[in-house]
Amino acid sequence: MITVLRLNHRLKRDARLTTHCCMASRAFGAKEIIYTGEKDEKLEGTVNDIANRWGGKFSIRYEKNYRAVLREFKKKGFFICHLTMFGIPIQNKIKEIRKKKKILIVVGGEKVRGDVYQIADMNIGITNQPHSEVAALSIFLHEYFQGKELGKKFARAKIKIVPMERGKKVIKSCD
Amino acid sequence: MITVLRLNHRLKRDARLTTHCCMASRAFGAKEIIYTGEKDEKLEGTVNDIANRWGGKFSIRYEKNYRAVLREFKKKGFFICHLTMFGIPIQNKIKEIRKKKKILIVVGGEKVRGDVYQIADMNIGITNQPHSEVAALSIFLHEYFQGKELGKKFARAKIKIVPMERGKKVIKSCD
Repeated sequence: MITVLRLNHRLKRDARLTTHCCMASRAFGAKEIIYTGEKDEKLEGTVNDIANRWGGKFSIRYEKNYRAVLREFKKKGFFICHLTMFGIPIQNKIKEIRKKKKILIVVGGEKVRGDVYQIADMNIGITNQPHSEVAALSIFLHEYFQGKELGKKFARAKIKIVPMERGKKVIKSCD
Repeated sequence: MITVLRLNHRLKRDARLTTHCCMASRAFGAKEIIYTGEKDEKLEGTVNDIANRWGGKFSIRYEKNYRAVLREFKKKGFFICHLTMFGIPIQNKIKEIRKKKKILIVVGGEKVRGDVYQIADMNIGITNQPHSEVAALSIFLHEYFQGKELGKKFARAKIKIVPMERGKKVIKSCD
């Protein structure tokens, strides 16, 4: 059971990146995303709409206080993995992480506070190079699920793609 | 040898997503990114600055006409993989793709023209769910290099991170 915590969302600047974090979380097997920073109704609408049309179980919620979220998940027995370019390479830790069944993955925007590094059970680097929270999150989930997430089925989908060598094939069912 | 072609860049709307595509391409082992759409001096400056400070060989260039780029790379013997949610699941094709040593990975923004699907040697889906070109690109490179890219060294880096269990450690060398 995987929840993602996306820190410091800024309405204008992060709109698309946070949306991509949400969609990648859903596509690669997380159950929920929580975001802090600025509340964004449009983001929530987009994500709920995708989850509704494309199927499966995925939800988004806003929380004002990231510390409260970290406390909540510690209490619920989640293992907290903070993804940061300053952390220990994932390839050194992934076997240990795979043993944990409940994980809260924390991804920052800019300016992650020092206490996140302290509260996290692990600070994990998806390389120690600058790149992208979307990339880090995706590689983490892919490594955690060992590629099985690529074949994940989404129940009650109203829209489905039939993979094609060339072109596009979409099946839509009506409400 | 891997080059990434990022289609349809729009100055304002895509600034950060294209930057993330560039950084993920570099971090996960591509040598070059070419982008089409609107020319973006700021994007190029950011990417060149990162490549210069963080080391390794990575370059960015703008081309107006994506068809000319596709033709150029076909002529140079590159295998063209277009990443699209409509394509064949990567897990069915990756063994075949790994045999190719020169690959042009094409990632769209919105509205990819039909001819891209025709000119590409393969149309590949990183799942058939909606998510992110940054995620698709990262998972593709990770699958292609089989995780070895996570340990990639970047020569002549002026800035390096020393991985830490907690906190941040950066080594900077002066010019």
